[in-house]
Amino acid sequence: MEIAILGGTGDLGRGLALRWARDADHDLAIGSRSAEKAEDAAATYRDRIAEHADGSAADGASIEGRTNADAAATADVVVAAVPPSYLADTVAAVGDALRDDAILVSPAVELVADDAGVHHDRPDEGSYTAVASAAAPVETPVVGAFHTLAAGRLAALERSLDLDALVVGDDASARSTVAGLVEDVDGLRALHAGPLANAGAVEALTPLQITVGRYNDVEDAGVQFR
Amino acid sequence: MEIAILGGTGDLGRGLALRWARDADHDLAIGSRSAEKAEDAAATYRDRIAEHADGSAADGASIEGRTNADAAATADVVVAAVPPSYLADTVAAVGDALRDDAILVSPAVELVADDAGVHHDRPDEGSYTAVASAAAPVETPVVGAFHTLAAGRLAALERSLDLDALVVGDDASARSTVAGLVEDVDGLRALHAGPLANAGAVEALTPLQITVGRYNDVEDAGVQFR
Repeated sequence: MEIAILGGTGDLGRGLALRWARDADHDLAIGSRSAEKAEDAAATYRDRIAEHADGSAADGASIEGRTNADAAATADVVVAAVPPSYLADTVAAVGDALRDDAILVSPAVELVADDAGVHHDRPDEGSYTAVASAAAPVETPVVGAFHTLAAGRLAALERSLDLDALVVGDDASARSTVAGLVEDVDGLRALHAGPLANAGAVEALTPLQITVGRYNDVEDAGVQFR
Repeated sequence: MEIAILGGTGDLGRGLALRWARDADHDLAIGSRSAEKAEDAAATYRDRIAEHADGSAADGASIEGRTNADAAATADVVVAAVPPSYLADTVAAVGDALRDDAILVSPAVELVADDAGVHHDRPDEGSYTAVASAAAPVETPVVGAFHTLAAGRLAALERSLDLDALVVGDDASARSTVAGLVEDVDGLRALHAGPLANAGAVEALTPLQITVGRYNDVEDAGVQFR
């Protein structure tokens, strides 16, 4: 499968790219506003994989760098791994380029910090997954996923995951495709977390994980439902 | 330790009473508006424990039924296991009776359901733990706990837990006491989840657990942070 990771030079993009490249056989397009920056990141990721996967990436996996628009244009699945404040613009900018059957994935969560800790900053739309959906072409199914996975833990290939990843969205087929991509990563289990209207509840789990992790010395805490 | 469970004839009260009576050696006072109803429930719980704990409750554990006010008057820890809509009135009604060193525990979460599933109904105070705190005497520390544990799973003594329970509150000593009571139950780990201001985030996890459980056939789902 061809996966575009928009903002793929950022922390979460790096983590997802490294895990997919090591554990699966997808064609990964690292997207950035600058093709050169994307190519540099892709080269770095290839080097990391070569160090961590017995000298070779998963058979058949590839990592290339492109502009966000070029990456999005041919992908089966487009992951908008950009900061929440750039999400709507990034999705809108690639909308016309998307394939008719493309699936858009939003992992964005906005956090705010105060004296009591880190909190969820819920947008007026109810969730950033809904923000992405509003900015995407009408025919493009939008799935929320990867909200609850710490970028640093994904990128540290020597660290085990053994975590659940919640998948939300209104389109069952798209949700199922994304669940499959989640489970391509060793140690991740995909759980259906309801329709798009439930994405706010999923995004709100992220700051709670951060708070609980900080108070209990669990680095990059995730969750398992059991 | 003497623990009063206000509303102890309800589902969560039953679950907590059964687990504590089986696994620890506390003196449990089941509270209800009716002393007779409380005594009946206590007798039923004693019978359940006798069936499930090799014929006897934990050494030293006791379960008695009383009115909420009588139960609250002598307890070290008072758990307000009542529906959210009764929480403020129940706490206010026993406020004058509480010992000077009593700790109040709030497990209440309000849920609302719509077509998309079950959602958190956040009160104006930010959380029901904060509602309990506002209704309690100024000198009584209020701790939020047990929000994320399904009553039915607690009451089914043959079911394993192996779950985390989040403990929130501003008073470190009270939080620590309640964390100890959490860990008295076999299979529960207490995690510090921040000050009272974070209780809304903790309470919001409950409906997400219910939704994820329903969509993925996990009965009475709980979580582990890891």
